[in-house]
Amino acid sequence: MKNKKAVVLLSGGLDSTTVMAIARANGYEIYGLSFRYGQRHAMELEAARRVARAFNAIEHMIMDVDLAKIGGSALTGDNQVPKNRDEGEMKKEIPVTYVPARNTIFLAHALAWAEVLGASEIFLGVNAIDYSGYPDCRPQYIAAFEQMANLATKAGVEGKTRVKIRTPLIHMTKADIIRKGIELGVDYGMTHSCYDPSPEGMPCGRCDSCLLREKGFREAGITDPVTLVR
Amino acid sequence: MKNKKAVVLLSGGLDSTTVMAIARANGYEIYGLSFRYGQRHAMELEAARRVARAFNAIEHMIMDVDLAKIGGSALTGDNQVPKNRDEGEMKKEIPVTYVPARNTIFLAHALAWAEVLGASEIFLGVNAIDYSGYPDCRPQYIAAFEQMANLATKAGVEGKTRVKIRTPLIHMTKADIIRKGIELGVDYGMTHSCYDPSPEGMPCGRCDSCLLREKGFREAGITDPVTLVR
Repeated sequence: MKNKKAVVLLSGGLDSTTVMAIARANGYEIYGLSFRYGQRHAMELEAARRVARAFNAIEHMIMDVDLAKIGGSALTGDNQVPKNRDEGEMKKEIPVTYVPARNTIFLAHALAWAEVLGASEIFLGVNAIDYSGYPDCRPQYIAAFEQMANLATKAGVEGKTRVKIRTPLIHMTKADIIRKGIELGVDYGMTHSCYDPSPEGMPCGRCDSCLLREKGFREAGITDPVTLVR
Repeated sequence: MKNKKAVVLLSGGLDSTTVMAIARANGYEIYGLSFRYGQRHAMELEAARRVARAFNAIEHMIMDVDLAKIGGSALTGDNQVPKNRDEGEMKKEIPVTYVPARNTIFLAHALAWAEVLGASEIFLGVNAIDYSGYPDCRPQYIAAFEQMANLATKAGVEGKTRVKIRTPLIHMTKADIIRKGIELGVDYGMTHSCYDPSPEGMPCGRCDSCLLREKGFREAGITDPVTLVR
């Protein structure tokens, strides 16, 4: 396992930070990959920088992807971010915060970088339990991406190492994720989850992402360090 | 078929121009999608603009994707473009002009736009016969992308229209492609194929792309209008 390289997709949120901790604990050399994609707030990228430094990433690349030009999502400015929804409402339909094909675009960039680096693993913090109903967070999507990826690149032609898409959180509850992170020494105070923070960077406490985070900490019986500083 | 929308990936080269002509002849409303991806020459995008206009595209979107930051290809500046190779050499191994995961990144953007537009088709000019040995031009790659795409988006969850990846040239020789284009009235004088043009935009005549184009016109028994103006 020594010196194996992994590209870790890093939003700076709770899930991707835990994934980076898991990859690090498994002995991978970390290459963090984040995106400036027209999201409403730059707080995410600040959090991603802090996290990449904390886990001694060999490199942290921030790529520009102009998803706002394509549109179709509340996260890139087309709609209001919904507030105060209960879990039933969250799971009923795909929410307006869904960004069309976002994980596919992010994973495609990770695949390109992994091929150039010779990295055999791409880590991604998707979750199919406590999630907002996005189609590109489901296990069958991840399996299909991995299959496609190994036909897309030199790996598929010259018999080189295949790339694996690792999603260690996919079957965990938010509380399990937080417990795992705490066990690995993650300081969740450096993460940012809110879809719609105040101009000063304070979480709104009412969007799906804030509500799922709150529920996770409550169920884990742990105090969220981010709410402490609020 | 009337008023059906199609996203057409358009490089401004011979293949993607023929694909756009085919999509148009089949009655699709055309949404052209091109990329500024750190390629050495801007000629490609000029050609793409001419072609999109010629086929009355409803919209022609040019997106920025920073593949040069990822590196790993002669087309984005990492190596010399190879010259004067015969077909045996071209097919022996994946050439340095291969751009890691390029088609996956391009198709991922097309998928996002198709979802926002409600387009059921994505057209792509890949070719598995007279080609440069790129892994992401093979039929099995395209099939895997289509399968992944329909799990990635709302189509895969809410039973909406599935997206289809159309590759009408995939089993055609370069000569067949040119004959088909001429039959549909394509003016190949507006296209650009060279990987390494002069500062004035003249094709080098010796890179894989120029050589495959020359062979295609020769075998089709047609004079290339681009060589006429040289």
